[in-house]
Amino acid sequence: MPAGLMRGQQETERLTRRYRTVRRRSEALCRPLAVDDYQVQSITETSPPKWHLAHVTWFFETFLLEPFLPGYRPFHDRFPYLFNSYYETVGPMQPRPLRGLLSRPTVEEVYRYRAHVDERIEALLETVAGRDRPEVLARLTLGLNHEQQHQELLLMDIKHNFSVNPLLPAYQATGPGAAAPAAAAPDWIEVAGGIRDIGHGGAGFAFDNEGPRHRVLVRDHRLATRLVTNGEYLAFMEDGGYERPELWLSDGWSLIRRQGWRHPLYWHRDGERWSEFTLGGPGPLDPDTPVSHVSYYEADAFARWAGRRLPEEAELELQLADRPVEGNFADSGRFHPRPGSGQWYGDLWEWTASPYGPYPGFRPLGGAMGEYNGKFMCNQMVLRGGCCATPHDHMRPTYRNFFYPHDRWPFTGIRLAEEIS
Amino acid sequence: MPAGLMRGQQETERLTRRYRTVRRRSEALCRPLAVDDYQVQSITETSPPKWHLAHVTWFFETFLLEPFLPGYRPFHDRFPYLFNSYYETVGPMQPRPLRGLLSRPTVEEVYRYRAHVDERIEALLETVAGRDRPEVLARLTLGLNHEQQHQELLLMDIKHNFSVNPLLPAYQATGPGAAAPAAAAPDWIEVAGGIRDIGHGGAGFAFDNEGPRHRVLVRDHRLATRLVTNGEYLAFMEDGGYERPELWLSDGWSLIRRQGWRHPLYWHRDGERWSEFTLGGPGPLDPDTPVSHVSYYEADAFARWAGRRLPEEAELELQLADRPVEGNFADSGRFHPRPGSGQWYGDLWEWTASPYGPYPGFRPLGGAMGEYNGKFMCNQMVLRGGCCATPHDHMRPTYRNFFYPHDRWPFTGIRLAEEIS
Amino acid sequence: MPAGLMRGQQETERLTRRYRTVRRRSEALCRPLAVDDYQVQSITETSPPKWHLAHVTWFFETFLLEPFLPGYRPFHDRFPYLFNSYYETVGPMQPRPLRGLLSRPTVEEVYRYRAHVDERIEALLETVAGRDRPEVLARLTLGLNHEQQHQELLLMDIKHNFSVNPLLPAYQATGPGAAAPAAAAPDWIEVAGGIRDIGHGGAGFAFDNEGPRHRVLVRDHRLATRLVTNGEYLAFMEDGGYERPELWLSDGWSLIRRQGWRHPLYWHRDGERWSEFTLGGPGPLDPDTPVSHVSYYEADAFARWAGRRLPEEAELELQLADRPVEGNFADSGRFHPRPGSGQWYGDLWEWTASPYGPYPGFRPLGGAMGEYNGKFMCNQMVLRGGCCATPHDHMRPTYRNFFYPHDRWPFTGIRLAEEIS
Amino acid sequence: MPAGLMRGQQETERLTRRYRTVRRRSEALCRPLAVDDYQVQSITETSPPKWHLAHVTWFFETFLLEPFLPGYRPFHDRFPYLFNSYYETVGPMQPRPLRGLLSRPTVEEVYRYRAHVDERIEALLETVAGRDRPEVLARLTLGLNHEQQHQELLLMDIKHNFSVNPLLPAYQATGPGAAAPAAAAPDWIEVAGGIRDIGHGGAGFAFDNEGPRHRVLVRDHRLATRLVTNGEYLAFMEDGGYERPELWLSDGWSLIRRQGWRHPLYWHRDGERWSEFTLGGPGPLDPDTPVSHVSYYEADAFARWAGRRLPEEAELELQLADRPVEGNFADSGRFHPRPGSGQWYGDLWEWTASPYGPYPGFRPLGGAMGEYNGKFMCNQMVLRGGCCATPHDHMRPTYRNFFYPHDRWPFTGIRLAEEIS
Repeated sequence: MPAGLMRGQQETERLTRRYRTVRRRSEALCRPLAVDDYQVQSITETSPPKWHLAHVTWFFETFLLEPFLPGYRPFHDRFPYLFNSYYETVGPMQPRPLRGLLSRPTVEEVYRYRAHVDERIEALLETVAGRDRPEVLARLTLGLNHEQQHQELLLMDIKHNFSVNPLLPAYQATGPGAAAPAAAAPDWIEVAGGIRDIGHGGAGFAFDNEGPRHRVLVRDHRLATRLVTNGEYLAFMEDGGYERPELWLSDGWSLIRRQGWRHPLYWHRDGERWSEFTLGGPGPLDPDTPVSHVSYYEADAFARWAGRRLPEEAELELQLADRPVEGNFADSGRFHPRPGSGQWYGDLWEWTASPYGPYPGFRPLGGAMGEYNGKFMCNQMVLRGGCCATPHDHMRPTYRNFFYPHDRWPFTGIRLAEEIS
Repeated sequence: MPAGLMRGQQETERLTRRYRTVRRRSEALCRPLAVDDYQVQSITETSPPKWHLAHVTWFFETFLLEPFLPGYRPFHDRFPYLFNSYYETVGPMQPRPLRGLLSRPTVEEVYRYRAHVDERIEALLETVAGRDRPEVLARLTLGLNHEQQHQELLLMDIKHNFSVNPLLPAYQATGPGAAAPAAAAPDWIEVAGGIRDIGHGGAGFAFDNEGPRHRVLVRDHRLATRLVTNGEYLAFMEDGGYERPELWLSDGWSLIRRQGWRHPLYWHRDGERWSEFTLGGPGPLDPDTPVSHVSYYEADAFARWAGRRLPEEAELELQLADRPVEGNFADSGRFHPRPGSGQWYGDLWEWTASPYGPYPGFRPLGGAMGEYNGKFMCNQMVLRGGCCATPHDHMRPTYRNFFYPHDRWPFTGIRLAEEIS
Repeated sequence: MPAGLMRGQQETERLTRRYRTVRRRSEALCRPLAVDDYQVQSITETSPPKWHLAHVTWFFETFLLEPFLPGYRPFHDRFPYLFNSYYETVGPMQPRPLRGLLSRPTVEEVYRYRAHVDERIEALLETVAGRDRPEVLARLTLGLNHEQQHQELLLMDIKHNFSVNPLLPAYQATGPGAAAPAAAAPDWIEVAGGIRDIGHGGAGFAFDNEGPRHRVLVRDHRLATRLVTNGEYLAFMEDGGYERPELWLSDGWSLIRRQGWRHPLYWHRDGERWSEFTLGGPGPLDPDTPVSHVSYYEADAFARWAGRRLPEEAELELQLADRPVEGNFADSGRFHPRPGSGQWYGDLWEWTASPYGPYPGFRPLGGAMGEYNGKFMCNQMVLRGGCCATPHDHMRPTYRNFFYPHDRWPFTGIRLAEEIS
Repeated sequence: MPAGLMRGQQETERLTRRYRTVRRRSEALCRPLAVDDYQVQSITETSPPKWHLAHVTWFFETFLLEPFLPGYRPFHDRFPYLFNSYYETVGPMQPRPLRGLLSRPTVEEVYRYRAHVDERIEALLETVAGRDRPEVLARLTLGLNHEQQHQELLLMDIKHNFSVNPLLPAYQATGPGAAAPAAAAPDWIEVAGGIRDIGHGGAGFAFDNEGPRHRVLVRDHRLATRLVTNGEYLAFMEDGGYERPELWLSDGWSLIRRQGWRHPLYWHRDGERWSEFTLGGPGPLDPDTPVSHVSYYEADAFARWAGRRLPEEAELELQLADRPVEGNFADSGRFHPRPGSGQWYGDLWEWTASPYGPYPGFRPLGGAMGEYNGKFMCNQMVLRGGCCATPHDHMRPTYRNFFYPHDRWPFTGIRLAEEIS
């Protein structure tokens, strides 16, 4: 057997294995759910777990099976309408706020849909050759990364879905965890500025929005060596943090007035004590654990109160690029941030002060896949480093996540920075 | 055994049988549902089937077991919050628009809740005696009538839930039915006016809002001997019914402009042909079948277009009182109106021109049960006669149903009336 | 000169005088306004004074000058769009909520518009003859009654416009008035039921909705001989009136929760004391003055708290028909209710328990004028007797006013009734 | 007289002259208004002209007279509530959407308020000395620049107020102007990248958000030598610009769907011809005039359609810094963009691709004046160069304006840029 063929076959086997692993992981994450839980959409921003499972499958069907598997016919002619998320150029779609109304297809049918597509994807991988092959492999890799993003969203969405239920159900048995190392006093890394390179370049998968690699001008700055803790955030609250307009961006101030926000999303006060809702159900608030589920506005107000600022995305990427991709990821099954220090990767997505925009020379993917990232480059802020719901092998130093400044349902947290003047 | 005791025992047995029958009927109505279907709340007005099943159970628990079964402890301490509908004096409740977010309790738990309550209700029936006994029997009867109302709502709500799903699922195999008798030309009954008695009086169960029996002044009038058909309504539409403001009440006109209503709720146009969504799925529109799922505004506009008016509730009650309670009820399992004539009972709730208000001397039930009917006596219109989703033995001539003038999801229809001048 | 001709001329002169009187009265009511005040629309329900002045003029122009004055050309080709209120069959119109944006035409132009139309109306009155004459006179009378309705609205709207201004400007120098007779203890009139006649019949002007005269069945009842006072309403509030759901209609309860209503519209609490905003500015609340600016829901809840009910419209009309049309009307220039007793006419529009609907055999006016009253016969409640903003010669025993149950900006009040059992 | 004293006196005289000039200019801009026009607030984003005139006066009163003029008492104790715009730390304020309801104070009173404050400001300028003097002069300069910003807003807001009036009134007699030079074919300036300095530094007034001066990394790029014209924008529209989702940012696409936007704000189609509403009233659309009143989303979509991008703010500042501050400013009284080329200053505010954020090391002013700019540094985009409503002597190369991406009522336009690769 020629070496090229053998390499091809090995690559097929490797990708098939990876495909199976990722696909099974999504289903494993749903195992604690009752059928009833698969369909809740608690707010417009979240999606029902069933929808996630079907949507990622539709992605493989639409971008791989339909164009590349000869004779493939869609599993169901209305599924593209139901499970297209936001690909306007592919066709019309179920309005996002109405995803929670879809009792059909049933959970069982969605699993059949997954199995149907899985079987054909594996067939495609085994047979595709020639000019199609690199494109198929590239799209497969994109599809797997896409599914991993939805694994993260699954956990965030399930957490929110459960939190609005007065029964406060637990997704998993274990709570946020007991005896943990106390958070050390925050320390500061000093970084000298200059011209640096950031962004993805070279081999290996990355989303289009991570490139091209380019020069940036970074200024002298310091970064905290750990995330802000619940205890520190409580001090901000007790110092009138939510009542002092001078600490807030104007849009943030009117938001917290309008919504009556007085604490992070999942906090609850019982008399004198604070508790926190987690994927393990409600539990007492641990002062040493990083504060989570804060909006950009809250992160920014906290930083102003602390006399500091939020980091630029380039500042964080330079740190990430220097460190091994290790941390408290979804693989641990903890699904909650951990006290300690470092926390560069995992634990919580860190809000940056950088609005999400295109890197110089950014080119979106061709065709409908060009809608993946580029069209969101307005009104959102960049977050870096991954979180406790992110699959470990999904992370890279150049990874750019983005949310609206008012979003609180993702696993978000705060790291402080400051100028050196 | 003394005769009184024996009568009491027979009554207990009869009521126990009836309790079982009604309770099983609710569950039978849900048998065609997938677990997924139990949780959908497509609009604020509807409730998830699961919620209905639990709420009627909470009613028995709250108004019978808690006050009358010694030592009874609620099945779950949060269920009163979740399954109280609108009894403000009982305690706070899950906001109505958020009923669809409750994945927990699961369907399975709700059925366990039902079984738990059923067992204890039967125990209560067997043991209650003395002064409590008449009150318990009265409340049980109320509770069963309450559950029957929710059986009707179950079918209406399932129909709406399914209708918003682009897959247009069918609740049952059979469609609206084929070869049916053509609608005869409408005929008219002439009724001489005068002082008459309407409303419930004497023995037998009735809701508080049906009494007291009282004198009314009825004028000479004519009533159509059948409901308005789809074909007749189509003629109204083709004559510009939805574009002519002079036919509409002001609130109706602004509603249909704002919502873009151009036809009854479940109609759909495919090119030249009209189809209608039913509990058997979509099917061609039958011109002889009574038009259904119209709002009061549409019924009123149709009547004005036809040079007629809608009946007063007293006018309909006088007809109903003279006729046997027979018609196309839920018991047939058809769940769709039938062409033909008469249709006084069953088929469709008939909009009347009478705003829903208290009869002279109306007294609501005591305590929280006083919230059952009285507090809704504003902004709604009376409907009469029952529909194809109403249990046969739930109907009476004096029955007063009520909906908002904009409501279209119930099984509503139109009967014409006119003055004799 | 033949007698007929002379009668005709006298009638012309009389009507011309009346036309001038009514038209000047509208302008006199606006004299206290700054140009700035003419344009405010504080809520969708109110209209800017300038708009009222122009709209009533448009009414004369559209329904009299255009059809009957040969060669008449509209003053401005866009004024029909700007000043049509709700006559859909006449043509499109400026959306109601946007009336406050019309800085043009200026106040000065609107007065020119009035003068222009006035001159031509008088010319028409002098020249019209033959078949047109009775129709012209009928429409003129309708137009004058229409303008008087807007005089009342002018005062209600100015009051609301001023009330939202933090400067709380006064429309007139005098406040609600000082030394007034204390309210006597409420007394009760007993009325025997039976078949009676109500509604307008015979000669003299009435709106179409007041007829035809017809028989009604009235029950034995009692009516309070005066309106409910501020002091009595305060007792209701202090007894938890706004916190007890059992006192409220369901729609009312959710409204007061949503809006945070805790007292009548224009009341304001300064520490321990209550003040009330009037057209004379803010002043201390007088306990003997009738409570005003309450919604139907509040009137109904008060009556339930008091163990009474609101009157039926027929019950009030029978009283009004027996009494001279005298009371505290706009002509006194007081523009505020007066303590005392009786108060059958004037002071405050009295909420009735009667939904606003058509009398048996009701026929709206022909053509666009048919939109005047009939199309509002849904979702509103009847009020009777006129108020302190109503012109005296505008009132009749058969007069039916109507507002939505949530409306509070009109001069509304409460009279109690009760069954005799 | 000592030289220092003389310099001080000259400075006082110079500033007093400038104060008078700027203040009179605001009033001159309002001269074409009827009293009626002073009070319109057509959308939440705009303010009534009367409010602008009072607010800028409140600014002088609050930040100069109250702290620095001994014994000064506010003109009216409620004016701070009415005319505070967004200075949360100063005190509560009239909600922005309700500014249009304030008929009082009248226009006349507002002019009296202005005169009152003017007199005392001049007195303050003549008497202030010692340590207070530099602070007073700095605040006066800020207040004058503040008033100039509101002069620009006055024109933008009047334009919008008039545009929603179906009468389409003209603010000034002259239309957009006749025979104008045709727009030349667009040319491109090529700029080599590198480390550059931008931002305000050194002497002379600038807003706090323009500093500190700092290094930026600019890339090689090209800039168009003129603004995009109406004709070019029309080509975009005719090429399906508003129907092609692939051209739009996601938030922009959903906005134009929701709002039904199909062309720039003030365009109107009459059959085959396009017209444009200007401060001179409606007139035919000139293809050579720069396209104006487009949102960021439209500017961005146009650039994508043209295969280009929008400029970075640094790229524009480098051009502005190299050029004399000359162009079509408000001083010409034209109040409309002009065809031609260059157009770096004046004509239209140019959307940049730069989100509005703090420069490195940004420090807001102390106290309440710190709310001037800094708290808006989120969700908005930077615009550069001034417009035809900007006073000439208000402009600087470092000037940073900012609006939300959906804003269209300001005088906004488009300049294209592109990478050099």
